[in-house]
Amino acid sequence: MWARPSAGYAAEQPAGLIRQRYHYVVSERSSMRYPIVTDEQVDAVIGIEDVIPKIERAMREHANGNLTAPPRLVIDAGAGSLVFTAGALTGQEPVAGFRVYETFPKDEPGHTQLVVSYDGESGVMQGIITGFRVGVIRTGAIGGVAVKHLAREGADTVAMIGSGTQARSQLVAANAVRDLEQVRVYSPTRGHRESFSEEMSKMLSLEVTAVESPRDAIEDADIVISATRSKTPVYDADLLEPGMHVTTLGPNLAGTNEIEIGVADRSDVIVTDSLAQLDSYGEYTKPYFLSETKHRERIRDLGDVIVGKRPGRESDEDITLFCSVGLAGTEVVVANEVFKNLAGQ
Amino acid sequence: MWARPSAGYAAEQPAGLIRQRYHYVVSERSSMRYPIVTDEQVDAVIGIEDVIPKIERAMREHANGNLTAPPRLVIDAGAGSLVFTAGALTGQEPVAGFRVYETFPKDEPGHTQLVVSYDGESGVMQGIITGFRVGVIRTGAIGGVAVKHLAREGADTVAMIGSGTQARSQLVAANAVRDLEQVRVYSPTRGHRESFSEEMSKMLSLEVTAVESPRDAIEDADIVISATRSKTPVYDADLLEPGMHVTTLGPNLAGTNEIEIGVADRSDVIVTDSLAQLDSYGEYTKPYFLSETKHRERIRDLGDVIVGKRPGRESDEDITLFCSVGLAGTEVVVANEVFKNLAGQ
Repeated sequence: MWARPSAGYAAEQPAGLIRQRYHYVVSERSSMRYPIVTDEQVDAVIGIEDVIPKIERAMREHANGNLTAPPRLVIDAGAGSLVFTAGALTGQEPVAGFRVYETFPKDEPGHTQLVVSYDGESGVMQGIITGFRVGVIRTGAIGGVAVKHLAREGADTVAMIGSGTQARSQLVAANAVRDLEQVRVYSPTRGHRESFSEEMSKMLSLEVTAVESPRDAIEDADIVISATRSKTPVYDADLLEPGMHVTTLGPNLAGTNEIEIGVADRSDVIVTDSLAQLDSYGEYTKPYFLSETKHRERIRDLGDVIVGKRPGRESDEDITLFCSVGLAGTEVVVANEVFKNLAGQ
Repeated sequence: MWARPSAGYAAEQPAGLIRQRYHYVVSERSSMRYPIVTDEQVDAVIGIEDVIPKIERAMREHANGNLTAPPRLVIDAGAGSLVFTAGALTGQEPVAGFRVYETFPKDEPGHTQLVVSYDGESGVMQGIITGFRVGVIRTGAIGGVAVKHLAREGADTVAMIGSGTQARSQLVAANAVRDLEQVRVYSPTRGHRESFSEEMSKMLSLEVTAVESPRDAIEDADIVISATRSKTPVYDADLLEPGMHVTTLGPNLAGTNEIEIGVADRSDVIVTDSLAQLDSYGEYTKPYFLSETKHRERIRDLGDVIVGKRPGRESDEDITLFCSVGLAGTEVVVANEVFKNLAGQ
């Protein structure tokens, strides 16, 4: 359970040491202890592959109406905003909680997110997680669930566009749900793609090759994942071939989108983790890049595909597109796993 | 600064010891430390009297449009809800943050609230406070500001209806803004009112007498404060006399109200800390007990009274009524003081 290789990027220190380091906040008056957990400790107790089945269950609960996720609360604080996403699973293993992040300029150190979860039966707080790993792990796990349900059988080659933290966890997740053979990574900075290749091939015991262009990555791939910060399309939709699965994670608002609308034109099936959230983008910023296109009406929820309410891939020739928006409530599912694992020590 | 008598109910231990006991959560990856504070430590670093001027300033900023407090976010989690109130002060000393509490049945230990604040310029989290004291301190301080601005000059006698935690901090706050001579406390359980009398007379060096009826408390008082959990009126409006100031803190929804509408009928001026919040009760539960009465249109914000936009008391014969609803954003002001004081150690 501890610091398995794919779990984390922090595991330079023995897990035991990390374990000892997390804090409890103790109130003498209430005699309660609540664990306060950092990124290092999150990585010490869970890996993305542990989380994928839990996120898959959350998607099922979403489809069955047992996941509550109200619209986000945004509070304007002048130079930036605080943003709250909350969620509750009311099914088999009830849990509730929230994530809060802020949008201030990151000119100085110290910015952090919080994820807090509560036992869904008693309402007692399970603990507090500071840092960014829970968000990255859940986004990775969501991508893993999408690949599991949408990529064609036998898919074993990944084209990764992007080489940052999110790209890494997408790859870890894809590798957890499919028996990968080969990965080709492109990102514009040679040093970045080469570090990715070196580190990820070691971590996953896989052939991970840095390539010179999106074309070199995508040709003959089964799974094409873009996880960039680009506001302009990072590859040409014409590079896609029948049977491919495509995941897009980066900025995808109208006019600032990492993939072109042409990718949707080429896709037979378009799926998202939260159609409601996808639809709500326009309220805060610009609409999602597919919201005002003919494609909007055929986008379906991944949960509905998983439980069979809506079809997913129907043939090996289909191109499937997964638009990741970050289903609210899934952070809380990850936090629940963190606290269960800490308590099991 | 440390554990002054009126600061708190926790100060059984030397402040130094409490000081040492609070935790920092440390992320090695980001090299940041965030203080995690409990009720005991809150009481060790601030008292209600320190907070009153800060809350008064927040009320001014409210009146001047520099306090942002969006409607609360409520998430239904089956057996209970999570409730978020967030706020940001964008004026002279900007700070933002939120409080979250839950409404699950309190059948077992471990329930807690959180208050989290952020530097309003940089967006960096100042720290996390667990427990209930911040809420109690800010409600006390709001009551203090109301007494300061609404009670008649020379008011020195308090009738307290209720003997719990909120009643105690209302009295500490009233004592901080007025030169009190005498306090009479009534609550239905003899033991409770006698403990209140004993403890508060010691804490405040004041004559605090437990009395047998609301009438015995209210007759000849200058300030009448009710802080109960009663869902039916706890005193007769006919007991009020010209010149009195009245504060009500307890449940005050239509049909479950600790004071009768007759109190409003008797009042010349009705003030609240947040008219917007008072108006919003109906969205979640029942409307505020005055919302659907003729009184609604004359209720005014305390901030507007403080800055002179709206009149408050106009004569020594006026009866003034303060309806405390808990202006959102004021918890964050208290948290800001806590973290400033901790940092100043």
